[in-house]
Amino acid sequence: MPETAAANWQPSGLITLLTDFGWQDPFVGVMKGVIYGRFPGARIVDLTHGILPHWPAEGAFWLSRCADYFAPGTVHVAVVDPGVGTSRRLLMLRTRGQLYLAPDNGLLAPLIESAGNRLELWEIRPAEVPGLLISHVSATFHGRDLFAPTAAALASGSLAPEKLGRTAQDPVPAWIDEPTLEKNKISGVIVTIDHFGNLITNITGTSIRAMTDPHIHLGGHIVALRRTYGDVQPGEDLALINSFDVLEIARAQGNAAAALGVERGAPVVVQDSVRLR
Amino acid sequence: MPETAAANWQPSGLITLLTDFGWQDPFVGVMKGVIYGRFPGARIVDLTHGILPHWPAEGAFWLSRCADYFAPGTVHVAVVDPGVGTSRRLLMLRTRGQLYLAPDNGLLAPLIESAGNRLELWEIRPAEVPGLLISHVSATFHGRDLFAPTAAALASGSLAPEKLGRTAQDPVPAWIDEPTLEKNKISGVIVTIDHFGNLITNITGTSIRAMTDPHIHLGGHIVALRRTYGDVQPGEDLALINSFDVLEIARAQGNAAAALGVERGAPVVVQDSVRLR
Amino acid sequence: MPETAAANWQPSGLITLLTDFGWQDPFVGVMKGVIYGRFPGARIVDLTHGILPHWPAEGAFWLSRCADYFAPGTVHVAVVDPGVGTSRRLLMLRTRGQLYLAPDNGLLAPLIESAGNRLELWEIRPAEVPGLLISHVSATFHGRDLFAPTAAALASGSLAPEKLGRTAQDPVPAWIDEPTLEKNKISGVIVTIDHFGNLITNITGTSIRAMTDPHIHLGGHIVALRRTYGDVQPGEDLALINSFDVLEIARAQGNAAAALGVERGAPVVVQDSVRLR
Repeated sequence: MPETAAANWQPSGLITLLTDFGWQDPFVGVMKGVIYGRFPGARIVDLTHGILPHWPAEGAFWLSRCADYFAPGTVHVAVVDPGVGTSRRLLMLRTRGQLYLAPDNGLLAPLIESAGNRLELWEIRPAEVPGLLISHVSATFHGRDLFAPTAAALASGSLAPEKLGRTAQDPVPAWIDEPTLEKNKISGVIVTIDHFGNLITNITGTSIRAMTDPHIHLGGHIVALRRTYGDVQPGEDLALINSFDVLEIARAQGNAAAALGVERGAPVVVQDSVRLR
Repeated sequence: MPETAAANWQPSGLITLLTDFGWQDPFVGVMKGVIYGRFPGARIVDLTHGILPHWPAEGAFWLSRCADYFAPGTVHVAVVDPGVGTSRRLLMLRTRGQLYLAPDNGLLAPLIESAGNRLELWEIRPAEVPGLLISHVSATFHGRDLFAPTAAALASGSLAPEKLGRTAQDPVPAWIDEPTLEKNKISGVIVTIDHFGNLITNITGTSIRAMTDPHIHLGGHIVALRRTYGDVQPGEDLALINSFDVLEIARAQGNAAAALGVERGAPVVVQDSVRLR
Repeated sequence: MPETAAANWQPSGLITLLTDFGWQDPFVGVMKGVIYGRFPGARIVDLTHGILPHWPAEGAFWLSRCADYFAPGTVHVAVVDPGVGTSRRLLMLRTRGQLYLAPDNGLLAPLIESAGNRLELWEIRPAEVPGLLISHVSATFHGRDLFAPTAAALASGSLAPEKLGRTAQDPVPAWIDEPTLEKNKISGVIVTIDHFGNLITNITGTSIRAMTDPHIHLGGHIVALRRTYGDVQPGEDLALINSFDVLEIARAQGNAAAALGVERGAPVVVQDSVRLR
């Protein structure tokens, strides 16, 4: 059951963009041109354009982990879309007062999962909304031709969410399984490697804080849990519950990914060494 | 003959920036500082800063291909400028209600060519406009010292375009020839390689759509024309008329540039296999 | 003695961000989400996010060199912070009508040095300001959890600078020594290498302009001083006083860093060949 009616949608005018387009080409620039052309008062935030090309899992992870830092009324556009121009659906999710637009390929899966039943999910068909799209719709750039004008209309308040589509069922599930929890053991994976070479997992802080003496195993290494990078000497490895509340393995003032030779998708196990008291 | 008088210039407040400055340094940041200092209400879009250093051809291509996605009243600033500080001219182009500022080195050539006679072209001399430039003008950063304050003044409406310069003749031509059209054959080149490794040519969709059964030849390969990436299996090569209406050669969910070993400037031939009926 | 009372702080609404976060991850995006959530009218400029990770010296250099291009009332946030989460202090500097927020690790040192006594320096403790921080403060992302809300409050005018902290003494000094001046000789270092491979030093134009016939020595090469890149043929090396008024060694339309094999921190000597007259 939806938490509130879509009619209560109160746009803030803020639009975020998350893509795998990179920065080299003017792809993001023309999306902004389309948005400003329809909604001059928009404020636009580049959430990131550095998602690994064609890998929705990483975009899905960041999209859900960043939600808390945006106010209700935000419209998020996520385009990691290897199936662009094929029959894959376009989805709109509403949860916690924010709207998310994305192709139906798992990009929204973690958000949907964490929302429980406090969400509304629509299949959207922008081409069927009278007057929404003016120009020709290409087969290969729906970010510009479908998502940008739709986001502009939603963020400006000129289009009500419920005018845009019908309730959707059975979205494509997440690309990455949730961590498995066993007695004294959590098994997850490296979801992303950040600019510093830090290895970021899908294992939440909540699950680790329940342990007594957790140690982290990955790629043949065992790493101890600390609070922050400065708690070890430069060049030493550490694990910490990072600022997005997930387990991260780092090398202080160094590059853990290069040093440990670990890639996205690598397994990570947290083992609790429970001691007799 | 100009389509309308410059006096009809109606700025929207939007400024775009296209450069070869990259993102590593604060060069773009200080341009924005200068713009906001003079026009606090500006909205600024980074069209791209990833143009191949010192190669105006790529900037010229994207500038002309992106024009349709910005509303009348936009001021575009293009700085790919190996001749900065020498006697090369600065130009201002007005076409379809938008203004373009650039050094005279071919950056505006495709826009000028496609505008036919519906354009106005000026040589601008910002240093001669009373009160326009306040600070010292460096010999090596005209983007910040000349273009940014000029764009701010034009976009805010505080400076009328016709106050800025005199009509210019004979701009520097394009670095890349237009494709040659023969019977059943079009010959062009790779103009740019995008973030995904897609090979983007200067051959327009219009010229290809006139063919019966086009096949694309480049680097010893023959590639068939499809509609979108998802029409072939991941890892297969395809050609398509892309969302900027030019021919593109891609590898589905892969990197065509790396796979085919093709660079910017490489020749591309489209051959029409006309069949007897 | 401070030049004016902090009570005279007149925010312009402009916030700049300088970090070593890169662009790959949504770290900058969530900082902007926090800022807009608290101050929807903010204008935000990315000064750069390309500072060499964990090297405040480069950030300090650019921060001080870019100050002139921002109007009074600007709030600058600088986060290059290997000591995040440890007991290192947070500082706020006010000089020439602008505010700077940074960890106390040398990032503000060149600005403090050049300000002479026309500055105010505070240690800030955002967590002690009632109502400033709403969410949990992480141990590893103070850019988002402390700096972003503080900058938003200062830039919006909702928080007066003097409410934020107490006067600070003895900030951490600069990582790089100022150039040494001897008779007919200046000795400095390469501070940064820009996107084009230009080698940028900490030797100011003022010190060089006092010389009669300066020649630049670095990495076993001697380079002559010119006015701009176009004054030599493509592929030739040159030195110039760049647009930030410091000595730069470049290769025209080429990459000097790669060609000369010089890294950040390398020594540079300017020798004046004084001639008898």
